Amino acid sequence: MTVSPFDSALTGPLLSDAETAALFTDRTVLRTMLKVEAALAEAQARCGVIGAGAASAIAAAAGALDPDPAALAARTAEDGVPLPALVATLRQAVAASAGDEAAQAVHWGATSQDIIDTGLVLRLRRAIGILDGRIAALVTALAGLADAHRGTVMPGRTRSQQATPISFGLKVAGWLAPLLRDRDRLRELKPRLLLLSFGGASGTLGALGGDGIAVEAALAEVLDLAVSPMPWHAQRDGIAEFAGWLALVTGTLGKIGRDLILLAQNEVAEVRPGAGGGSSTMPQKSNPVGPEALVALARFNAGMVGQLHHAMLHEHERDGAAWQIEWLALPQMLVATGAALNHAVALSGSLKVDAVRMAAQLEASHGLLLAEAASFALSAHMPRPEAQRLVKAAATRATATGRHLFDLLAETSDVPVDWPALRDPARHLGAADAFIDRVLAAAAG
Amino acid sequence: MTVSPFDSALTGPLLSDAETAALFTDRTVLRTMLKVEAALAEAQARCGVIGAGAASAIAAAAGALDPDPAALAARTAEDGVPLPALVATLRQAVAASAGDEAAQAVHWGATSQDIIDTGLVLRLRRAIGILDGRIAALVTALAGLADAHRGTVMPGRTRSQQATPISFGLKVAGWLAPLLRDRDRLRELKPRLLLLSFGGASGTLGALGGDGIAVEAALAEVLDLAVSPMPWHAQRDGIAEFAGWLALVTGTLGKIGRDLILLAQNEVAEVRPGAGGGSSTMPQKSNPVGPEALVALARFNAGMVGQLHHAMLHEHERDGAAWQIEWLALPQMLVATGAALNHAVALSGSLKVDAVRMAAQLEASHGLLLAEAASFALSAHMPRPEAQRLVKAAATRATATGRHLFDLLAETSDVPVDWPALRDPARHLGAADAFIDRVLAAAAG
Amino acid sequence: MTVSPFDSALTGPLLSDAETAALFTDRTVLRTMLKVEAALAEAQARCGVIGAGAASAIAAAAGALDPDPAALAARTAEDGVPLPALVATLRQAVAASAGDEAAQAVHWGATSQDIIDTGLVLRLRRAIGILDGRIAALVTALAGLADAHRGTVMPGRTRSQQATPISFGLKVAGWLAPLLRDRDRLRELKPRLLLLSFGGASGTLGALGGDGIAVEAALAEVLDLAVSPMPWHAQRDGIAEFAGWLALVTGTLGKIGRDLILLAQNEVAEVRPGAGGGSSTMPQKSNPVGPEALVALARFNAGMVGQLHHAMLHEHERDGAAWQIEWLALPQMLVATGAALNHAVALSGSLKVDAVRMAAQLEASHGLLLAEAASFALSAHMPRPEAQRLVKAAATRATATGRHLFDLLAETSDVPVDWPALRDPARHLGAADAFIDRVLAAAAG
Amino acid sequence: MTVSPFDSALTGPLLSDAETAALFTDRTVLRTMLKVEAALAEAQARCGVIGAGAASAIAAAAGALDPDPAALAARTAEDGVPLPALVATLRQAVAASAGDEAAQAVHWGATSQDIIDTGLVLRLRRAIGILDGRIAALVTALAGLADAHRGTVMPGRTRSQQATPISFGLKVAGWLAPLLRDRDRLRELKPRLLLLSFGGASGTLGALGGDGIAVEAALAEVLDLAVSPMPWHAQRDGIAEFAGWLALVTGTLGKIGRDLILLAQNEVAEVRPGAGGGSSTMPQKSNPVGPEALVALARFNAGMVGQLHHAMLHEHERDGAAWQIEWLALPQMLVATGAALNHAVALSGSLKVDAVRMAAQLEASHGLLLAEAASFALSAHMPRPEAQRLVKAAATRATATGRHLFDLLAETSDVPVDWPALRDPARHLGAADAFIDRVLAAAAG
Repeated sequence: MTVSPFDSALTGPLLSDAETAALFTDRTVLRTMLKVEAALAEAQARCGVIGAGAASAIAAAAGALDPDPAALAARTAEDGVPLPALVATLRQAVAASAGDEAAQAVHWGATSQDIIDTGLVLRLRRAIGILDGRIAALVTALAGLADAHRGTVMPGRTRSQQATPISFGLKVAGWLAPLLRDRDRLRELKPRLLLLSFGGASGTLGALGGDGIAVEAALAEVLDLAVSPMPWHAQRDGIAEFAGWLALVTGTLGKIGRDLILLAQNEVAEVRPGAGGGSSTMPQKSNPVGPEALVALARFNAGMVGQLHHAMLHEHERDGAAWQIEWLALPQMLVATGAALNHAVALSGSLKVDAVRMAAQLEASHGLLLAEAASFALSAHMPRPEAQRLVKAAATRATATGRHLFDLLAETSDVPVDWPALRDPARHLGAADAFIDRVLAAAAG
Repeated sequence: MTVSPFDSALTGPLLSDAETAALFTDRTVLRTMLKVEAALAEAQARCGVIGAGAASAIAAAAGALDPDPAALAARTAEDGVPLPALVATLRQAVAASAGDEAAQAVHWGATSQDIIDTGLVLRLRRAIGILDGRIAALVTALAGLADAHRGTVMPGRTRSQQATPISFGLKVAGWLAPLLRDRDRLRELKPRLLLLSFGGASGTLGALGGDGIAVEAALAEVLDLAVSPMPWHAQRDGIAEFAGWLALVTGTLGKIGRDLILLAQNEVAEVRPGAGGGSSTMPQKSNPVGPEALVALARFNAGMVGQLHHAMLHEHERDGAAWQIEWLALPQMLVATGAALNHAVALSGSLKVDAVRMAAQLEASHGLLLAEAASFALSAHMPRPEAQRLVKAAATRATATGRHLFDLLAETSDVPVDWPALRDPARHLGAADAFIDRVLAAAAG
Repeated sequence: MTVSPFDSALTGPLLSDAETAALFTDRTVLRTMLKVEAALAEAQARCGVIGAGAASAIAAAAGALDPDPAALAARTAEDGVPLPALVATLRQAVAASAGDEAAQAVHWGATSQDIIDTGLVLRLRRAIGILDGRIAALVTALAGLADAHRGTVMPGRTRSQQATPISFGLKVAGWLAPLLRDRDRLRELKPRLLLLSFGGASGTLGALGGDGIAVEAALAEVLDLAVSPMPWHAQRDGIAEFAGWLALVTGTLGKIGRDLILLAQNEVAEVRPGAGGGSSTMPQKSNPVGPEALVALARFNAGMVGQLHHAMLHEHERDGAAWQIEWLALPQMLVATGAALNHAVALSGSLKVDAVRMAAQLEASHGLLLAEAASFALSAHMPRPEAQRLVKAAATRATATGRHLFDLLAETSDVPVDWPALRDPARHLGAADAFIDRVLAAAAG
Repeated sequence: MTVSPFDSALTGPLLSDAETAALFTDRTVLRTMLKVEAALAEAQARCGVIGAGAASAIAAAAGALDPDPAALAARTAEDGVPLPALVATLRQAVAASAGDEAAQAVHWGATSQDIIDTGLVLRLRRAIGILDGRIAALVTALAGLADAHRGTVMPGRTRSQQATPISFGLKVAGWLAPLLRDRDRLRELKPRLLLLSFGGASGTLGALGGDGIAVEAALAEVLDLAVSPMPWHAQRDGIAEFAGWLALVTGTLGKIGRDLILLAQNEVAEVRPGAGGGSSTMPQKSNPVGPEALVALARFNAGMVGQLHHAMLHEHERDGAAWQIEWLALPQMLVATGAALNHAVALSGSLKVDAVRMAAQLEASHGLLLAEAASFALSAHMPRPEAQRLVKAAATRATATGRHLFDLLAETSDVPVDWPALRDPARHLGAADAFIDRVLAAAAG
């Protein structure tokens, strides 16, 4: 079934991400839980809570099992969690190989949430590695573009209108800068997210008597996870923070998508995003398929992030409904982020930047984009108010006549301004290169 | 892959709904699109736009094709929509059986969105039939419960505190009443949703020259769909309205879930929702699995509905990104609603109502829940302020001493109030039965 | 204080709406509640529950009181609702004028929610009247534009790329059509929203003994409100449905805003939305202020609508937290809708449509926007596949050479197509006029 | 006007926060912008861009001005931003005192967004200080409660059902732990948020020619703000991250509110949250007013956070609509957080913890909450499966007979378990004290 496009074979390559989605298949989810059960047994054997033989038997059975998800579904629906069904299966396997006593050592003192959430964390660790690698690739590609296009002058656009000249390099630097912060954020949040979940029935490890802390430490060591000050069963801030990070990444990429869609319009045509989706009957079209996906995935994640914040209202020591909301929302947000990063990496390597068209767009304004620069130049020779008035009058005439603003100003005023030199938009980029340098330095750092 | 629990074999029976989910498999989606292409050919043959032979060949090929979704995935990712890949496949099949000319008649004058959205509408029509049937079953079950429990007196609770007596029948009537309005809403919105989508490239049916309106009418007839005043490619209000309806239904059911979770707490224990998820080590537990799912699905849909409202900001004549947001959100909301209705129907037939416990909870307040009633009774014999003062004083003593409020009032005042008779909470249900009657009448209507 | 721009004197005219906002001032809220208390007293006097003298005294006091909101704030914070503080104030006034017995008749048998929600409904009724009037004005204006611009040909744009010709009239008809459905929706939902709220402490009217139904009927008559089958204290579907409607309206208008921003870009410049926000230093700019507000308000409401769906998970007979969420969300959504309608009405009367520019944009494609039409024309004289091949080859040459597609086709093929006549984009509008007619008929109906 | 309860004098003390709301009044907003204009002039004078006299005159005028917001409203609506109106007012004042040339130096080379966003940042810095102080107070109060209630044993509750014993101290530690992480997050995000915004028209500082970087540095120094690698006009990740943090804080507090509402139910009655909202006619009620507000504000912020993520899709160099969404959402989220912290601080100092009632709730389960512990104790003397069977059988009898589980086990089995000692729930708290210690250490660190 494919209720979600993230699970679809048809739209998968368009909107989903095979690599991160693979971490959320039923089988991977179950296999990771079994890995946690094996680790728990090993940790308890180290602490003398269960026998070494039982632990070995559990590890062997857990490693060998690959349960059919559908076979566990009925009991999962009864219990509201898949764990009891899985534990029963594991116990049965252990009993068959090593007897009842060893079988009872399975899942000893643990609660379903310990296994499910620790299993999630193990898979999130792998997912984060994948996303991080893509971010690194994107950073490299965007840094290259920003550097290469320092001199590619184009109209800056504010509130959808042409404003003053910028460089395409600066625009790309503006796509890159938040991504660098996203990278910092990820580094900071990881210690709050990649934590062992281990608390037993009500979060006290009560069933383990005096052994709880020791088993916790051993289990964390086996799984190479950090320990939280206390079990986080009912503390979901780490999950919500991570969801927020995912939405920050897709938001960062969605802005790139939005800019590319606008730049690829026929009437603008300054950048063509990759190959473009063709149309046999409409040959002039080159649909911005990748940028559209960036926007759709960004808005999807923006709409989803609140789900995880609602899920923080987790009642008492465990809240089944709040927990299920996480299951319904988090994997999709993660895979959406994986898909968006894939699109962004692909786009960053295939943009066709039309510098000639950009220059033509600047020229088409008859110098009006340089009005601010003109008034700045004049004000070196006369009071500012007078300079403003001169420019405003010339601008009105430029619009009416189609003549260039600077020609009109040269006619109107005899101050020694080198109008032809000033006419080059590249002269008006202000601190753009310095800004690019600072962003590239941060990217390299 | 199962990024979404709605697509999972493991958690499917817990959080998903096999029957509505089946309408969103890749194969069903593709098969329905082929059905629309066949209908289009038939309609165009009726209008003389293409030949009858071509139409037959298209219908035959479309009926026989069952394309592998994965085989269409790469081109879908290129184009941003699955339609060009599907049309190419269909054309190939038609060409093989009936030649190139017939093959070119495939998809004549249509645009991808015509086929995809009409296909969606056809599947929504089936989904609505399924949901409607479940609502009907739930209405019947809740009406039965409301009627049966008119006399089952329990504490009303406002702002989480016991207030005054109600009947369980009235509580159930309160679950039922919004569901009846949801039924009305569905009837009203259907004509705005179940519409043919047919506009061609830019929504003018321009490629059909003067035949557009005739073909539109014929196609609507073939598919038994209504026609909108103009193509709704870029008008997504019908989709957003339907999403809102889905969230209204799950919200209605989520309130039931919330009430049942609260009523099933060990300390309240007035209603036990079905079998309950057991726990081998904690025998006192009976986890409210069904109610939890109702709450989770309701909050999920509440979080999703805004996605479809954002998708209304659909640019120009077609907006790829806004459209994809619908794909990412609507099917999940629909299946969530199907799942919630399944849970609600199951729960409505398996609630264990503990009338004795309810009565005991009422009694445990030492009559404080009847304080309002007492002051009403006294005020027939004295000024209201005086009655209020008497009751307030007695209530304070009842709390302190554990004696019944009415015993204390009988001692304090000699007005001829029949305190023992008044002590029966069933005497204080006011208009509850009349309200139940009105709701049942609406349910029957 | 102005935490919300809807309450700001500075940004009010930009983002807020004075007329609907006036219905949500503290004073108006309190005065409307007093009106409900007066109506309750009158209804109870009619039914003999309280004396006619008390009712008159209550009506007089309620009519005269204009309490300082700040003076009621401390007790409101204590109680979690403003009603107890207001009732105390009203009782004091009645006691002063008519004595303690009359004072005790104030608020008899009612609960805070009865008064607050009925007050809300009375104000919503007025707000709906205001919004409805604006929708009517907008319908008229858009209908006029759609009709006037049937012949104003422009490029249709799909997925942000020029596609085939449409008329500006058809685009406007596409803005209008959903608004007509919004009008229908409002008519349908009003009977579910504009309802008396009257249930007493736990929704049974228990305090009124056998008089509840009679008082309910009388109160509904006094306030000219309909009665729901049972009190809707804990049934919030009507509120959530209304919030959905508000978001549908702003979504409808947000699409207009989005289109206008795109059409007003310097590079497109086909429509200028009103005066435009100027910039003294950038004379070429004409910021699309109204369209921006339409988009911002639409996205705001899209983000808010889920709040009201979450609030449907209303616990037991009254849920303080869920109720407060409505207070935090609904008024803002309503005023956002009022503001958006104001902007839309203003824009609809001040659009500057540049038909010359539109024609030039069409011409600039060298006939590529008519490629579909060309292949349709050729296929009357040759097999469709051959027609397609001819067009495709000519289109490639047109792009390369800048020559017109039809000139190239005329040279390539000797079929008797009247290429010059076909060159007129107005010939390719298909059913556009018929669609406009149908939308205008619906608008008139 | 008070469309939002955050601006209401009536509900302000219930749902708003006077101290942070004061930072968002129209006057404070305008005054802070004037402060930025003055700082800009000072910075430019330091760099020789404008004269020292002009800078002094601007500082004097900006310091003296307190413009009436309503007087700027009409032009604000025209321009879509309040800045041009404010700059005109400031220029007028400077012109009056120091002449036209000085007046033209106002706002030199800056854009509206520079002033508005830097003004926002200055106010956010003050707001963060306020919130941080409240978090510190709350941390101290919760740490004290956690420590004091280590021995206050109560039922742990999972999935709404009594599970195994915990201490109230552990529950409070679970409220505290995420708050400590929120504190860490705030420290980390501040350098990404509290940044000067200064880029001029299109983000190049082009109007300042070669002086841009120097003026930027000087301005940052004057305002004591950090500098971002490049202007963040169109990079809104810092704002969205901060909104996420606000929602994390209110989510953390909302969970406390939810727990308190549940613990305060009459049937549970283990904790009474402060005074409680009374009811004159229902004396048994003590409405959990503070906890309700915590829940409502948490859900409100959870619903709002996505708005800021949508606003990250900021088009080109400045996007009016995306920017306005921030105005509509961020201040409310901040004030909601301020209000929630106030409620939480007040509650943390006024909880009435009923240890006797907690103990009674534990006892009422006839030992079933200790079933896990019993099976653990038995398994020291027999195979685990046998121990489980014994406990299960005894539990069934305990439920049926009302006798204590341990009495039944003592009768059934003759293993040397000290059942009376084991009966003390305090013996079953496992690692609870160690967990509390770790949380308190983190709180102190």
